[in-house]
Amino acid sequence: MKVGIILGSASDRDAMKAAGTVLDDFGISWTAHILSAHRTPELLKEKVEQMETEGYGCIIAGAGLAAHLPGVIASLTTIPVIGVPLNAALDGMDSLLSIVQMPKGIPVATVGINNSTNAGLLAVQFLISGNKQLISQLEKYRSDMKEKFAEQNREGIKL
Amino acid sequence: MKVGIILGSASDRDAMKAAGTVLDDFGISWTAHILSAHRTPELLKEKVEQMETEGYGCIIAGAGLAAHLPGVIASLTTIPVIGVPLNAALDGMDSLLSIVQMPKGIPVATVGINNSTNAGLLAVQFLISGNKQLISQLEKYRSDMKEKFAEQNREGIKL
Amino acid sequence: MKVGIILGSASDRDAMKAAGTVLDDFGISWTAHILSAHRTPELLKEKVEQMETEGYGCIIAGAGLAAHLPGVIASLTTIPVIGVPLNAALDGMDSLLSIVQMPKGIPVATVGINNSTNAGLLAVQFLISGNKQLISQLEKYRSDMKEKFAEQNREGIKL
Amino acid sequence: MKVGIILGSASDRDAMKAAGTVLDDFGISWTAHILSAHRTPELLKEKVEQMETEGYGCIIAGAGLAAHLPGVIASLTTIPVIGVPLNAALDGMDSLLSIVQMPKGIPVATVGINNSTNAGLLAVQFLISGNKQLISQLEKYRSDMKEKFAEQNREGIKL
Amino acid sequence: MKVGIILGSASDRDAMKAAGTVLDDFGISWTAHILSAHRTPELLKEKVEQMETEGYGCIIAGAGLAAHLPGVIASLTTIPVIGVPLNAALDGMDSLLSIVQMPKGIPVATVGINNSTNAGLLAVQFLISGNKQLISQLEKYRSDMKEKFAEQNREGIKL
Amino acid sequence: MKVGIILGSASDRDAMKAAGTVLDDFGISWTAHILSAHRTPELLKEKVEQMETEGYGCIIAGAGLAAHLPGVIASLTTIPVIGVPLNAALDGMDSLLSIVQMPKGIPVATVGINNSTNAGLLAVQFLISGNKQLISQLEKYRSDMKEKFAEQNREGIKL
Amino acid sequence: MKVGIILGSASDRDAMKAAGTVLDDFGISWTAHILSAHRTPELLKEKVEQMETEGYGCIIAGAGLAAHLPGVIASLTTIPVIGVPLNAALDGMDSLLSIVQMPKGIPVATVGINNSTNAGLLAVQFLISGNKQLISQLEKYRSDMKEKFAEQNREGIKL
Amino acid sequence: MKVGIILGSASDRDAMKAAGTVLDDFGISWTAHILSAHRTPELLKEKVEQMETEGYGCIIAGAGLAAHLPGVIASLTTIPVIGVPLNAALDGMDSLLSIVQMPKGIPVATVGINNSTNAGLLAVQFLISGNKQLISQLEKYRSDMKEKFAEQNREGIKL
Repeated sequence: MKVGIILGSASDRDAMKAAGTVLDDFGISWTAHILSAHRTPELLKEKVEQMETEGYGCIIAGAGLAAHLPGVIASLTTIPVIGVPLNAALDGMDSLLSIVQMPKGIPVATVGINNSTNAGLLAVQFLISGNKQLISQLEKYRSDMKEKFAEQNREGIKL
Repeated sequence: MKVGIILGSASDRDAMKAAGTVLDDFGISWTAHILSAHRTPELLKEKVEQMETEGYGCIIAGAGLAAHLPGVIASLTTIPVIGVPLNAALDGMDSLLSIVQMPKGIPVATVGINNSTNAGLLAVQFLISGNKQLISQLEKYRSDMKEKFAEQNREGIKL
Repeated sequence: MKVGIILGSASDRDAMKAAGTVLDDFGISWTAHILSAHRTPELLKEKVEQMETEGYGCIIAGAGLAAHLPGVIASLTTIPVIGVPLNAALDGMDSLLSIVQMPKGIPVATVGINNSTNAGLLAVQFLISGNKQLISQLEKYRSDMKEKFAEQNREGIKL
Repeated sequence: MKVGIILGSASDRDAMKAAGTVLDDFGISWTAHILSAHRTPELLKEKVEQMETEGYGCIIAGAGLAAHLPGVIASLTTIPVIGVPLNAALDGMDSLLSIVQMPKGIPVATVGINNSTNAGLLAVQFLISGNKQLISQLEKYRSDMKEKFAEQNREGIKL
Repeated sequence: MKVGIILGSASDRDAMKAAGTVLDDFGISWTAHILSAHRTPELLKEKVEQMETEGYGCIIAGAGLAAHLPGVIASLTTIPVIGVPLNAALDGMDSLLSIVQMPKGIPVATVGINNSTNAGLLAVQFLISGNKQLISQLEKYRSDMKEKFAEQNREGIKL
Repeated sequence: MKVGIILGSASDRDAMKAAGTVLDDFGISWTAHILSAHRTPELLKEKVEQMETEGYGCIIAGAGLAAHLPGVIASLTTIPVIGVPLNAALDGMDSLLSIVQMPKGIPVATVGINNSTNAGLLAVQFLISGNKQLISQLEKYRSDMKEKFAEQNREGIKL
Repeated sequence: MKVGIILGSASDRDAMKAAGTVLDDFGISWTAHILSAHRTPELLKEKVEQMETEGYGCIIAGAGLAAHLPGVIASLTTIPVIGVPLNAALDGMDSLLSIVQMPKGIPVATVGINNSTNAGLLAVQFLISGNKQLISQLEKYRSDMKEKFAEQNREGIKL
Repeated sequence: MKVGIILGSASDRDAMKAAGTVLDDFGISWTAHILSAHRTPELLKEKVEQMETEGYGCIIAGAGLAAHLPGVIASLTTIPVIGVPLNAALDGMDSLLSIVQMPKGIPVATVGINNSTNAGLLAVQFLISGNKQLISQLEKYRSDMKEKFAEQNREGIKL
């Protein structure tokens, strides 16, 4: 199963990079496109419909300001949509509220401001159901993370 | 020239009523529809295209929460769009930011939270260019407003 | 596959009810428990481990104030966790930030303040992968929603 | 028809430049002045009255802090006024609220923080009514924007 | 010396009442008017000029929303202006920022949201310089206040 | 050891009651006074000095608005001070920031808005060091709390 | 008459400098001290009492964070106090609320964040009553400011 | 008695350093560890239990974003917990609310954003009860601080 990554603007590239890295780590294939809910609504619709046809399992969308992108994608498909609020103004608060406060009926799974790492991991979790290999990969990801902390801390640290 | 009023939800009716009243006062005809950017994207697109065909001069859109409605309409047409942030949560701050913080290229003319009176007046101003009758009507509206204040205040007030 | 619903306090019951209703609509079985991240950490851990053993596909957690519940659950399991910020103070902004701003590595899929309807729908989407029946159910849910809007709007409305 | 651009302070020049550029792109002539609602109220009044006499079609006003400029201009004329909140403190939130939260009766068409591009485009839309040339120019502006996105995305991007 | 009290709207009457009461307590005469910066700019200018001519020592102005009233008055006169932010939306935060964040050169002495009592006391302090009677009255006001607290607390309280 | 409870105003009584109740539960004696940092600075100073003399172990102070009370008390004594922000405006955000953002050198132990229960418990913790009886009382308080949750949840709940 | 300037910390020096400059421009003598409401309460009290004895006409106090300084000074004297919120965290919002939201009875005349220029001008206005020379100086200050704007704008500007 | 310092991430080291410095100044021994509430919940639990066994008198925990660390520690022990909100996004407001808004029953003693100095001093106050040496050390710390201010101010300063 593939994951689609959609960016609202070319300037969102750096902030969204970690989503792709996480998916690579899990051996999940993905494609990325720059498509704006407002400036290219038809192109966006086409691409989302294509993703539905091709059986994408999840779409990650990142945008700043009045970030309608994730919500608009969610309105076009039943593929689950993960929204990443990006900080382009107001510390990202405008984007967070524009993404998370969706009306009843059309959810967007929202992660933290600029936190595309968590978007990637959440995408893994959307694909996971019944997939034993992915589950054990995720468990390994977690235990590696713990191990790294543990090593640093065997003896306590200095400040 | 006609004005379209679009509400994101049936619960927005009371808050949007004043827009219609102002347009009636100016003798401008209008239609109103409940259409959601997220729940009825195709119906919304159809209606907006119909408004373009029928030569509507302005669209007023009111919505609460992650209020994508005005921005999504603006992405579908070159008819000017006026956005009215409605208070459904967070005192309306989520809606205000979702409407006003549009990306470069697709503006929405935003008015104050729940202030559909001003949306109606702004719609008059979008239709006004070159229309001498509307200009003098707007001037009368203003001077009536001033007169009402002036009357109340001839002698000062008690607190 | 089952969905677990966990409430941080008995007072969160009304706000979380819609999650259960949505799951019922989709014929998905669920259980609900009141468990606090802070006041009953061991009970919470036990319950989450039991859910893992019993193969739950998703956990919905709702809490107010410094809402650690969804994040703490996410730290205990690889089952995907959906967080519902509840308004117990500050219009729910404290809860939203406590849920959505998780550190890199442990995501919580956050929905809007008090929006347990969307939590239920997002849970459906977590269970959906490869389940054709659920997909067509979700498509029907969406088209019913659209139809309801469409009916109300055949002729436009009055304000 | 001409557009007036008024800046609250010389330091607002860079942030407001894009408004002029957009108007140039559309072949609309404009003038710009630095005039403060608080420090030069009489000069401001004179200039606005002159703009009325000379038949200006729209006034764009940008200011930071307690940004009274757009609202004060709107109180002096029936020419439509576009307000651009500028970030001089508090990420521009003070300016946004000072501009958008106008009382009933005197609207200001507000755009996003520092978004003078959108102010320019909204000015075009205020001048557009009945002007077929401007309408087709705006449609071309939109389709150029889309084309640029489309080109970047024919094959998807790398992150 | 007299104090002028100006309200932006008739609905601000209750919130501003305490300013008059305080001035009465100090035996200072005052007049009150409802005048809007936006809806009656000429009337406002006239009234402020009249207050200058009649030697008013201080002007108290209360308004809600984008509360330009105190700042606009301050731009019209060198009489000191006290601004009272009123809560008409957003808990009064819009009004507070619109009043307190004045640009360099034109100050408004701002008090707390809805706190017209303090506006009255601050007006006393603007009139106080060199006036021994007012100083001793203010000292008595303070000591009365302390006495009331002291009495309640001789023995501690129950909760 | 005794605990002092100081309220900034008589209207804070209900919100502060729970602090006394918690202390009663732990068998710790306390006194309560209404004393304002601004309106009765000398009385406040006297009372705090008396508390020092009498060996009070902790002072709980609750106030709303620009809540200087806890910080001012902390500046007068080395007795640890617990601050309770009370919601008198702006949902209590003004009070929270006025209490928690103390400068380096003079800390106030701040609890949640209106959360005088936690202030009482924190006071217990300030008195606890080396006191085995209090430690085991606090452990019992915790396990009672857990038991109550556990009972409610033996079989899961309905929504 | 003299003006006292009090800074909460040595790091506030740059932000407060403009207050002194304005007073110098008006030929008003002033003294400046660094005194903390929390770290040096006795020194602060002594200094304020000395200022009362020496007939100071106004005190300007600037502080950041939980800025109690202006309010604490106001509680110690009937000399009018001007508060300058300084940005040391949270864009200065903590300081603004800690200064402006004073309880009924003890006002602080608050100016904008970091705006010590306006604090200086407000101080002039506190000293002005009945002082014809100061009034005409203030009028000249205003007209100079206007003239500077007017010159820049004779012919309009380029962007 | 020892103090434990726990950091949510290695990047919090600089911000937390001052806590250790203050404890060193008071001759109190401490250990520091990097442990995440979400990424290493078991390690955290072990460490906190070890601290209980070893009789630690206080735990200081600093974290950014959705800072659950202090609250989660407080849920695991009756040792008093001091929370230090760190600014990793949103100026630290997310962290402040995630720490201070704890539910009734499990308090965290919260200090200002990034203010680990005050966390260290508050830790001293938790250890102080009955310890005459620590009390006189704290009094000396305070009087040194005052002396430093006093010296700077003997003659007033220049701006």
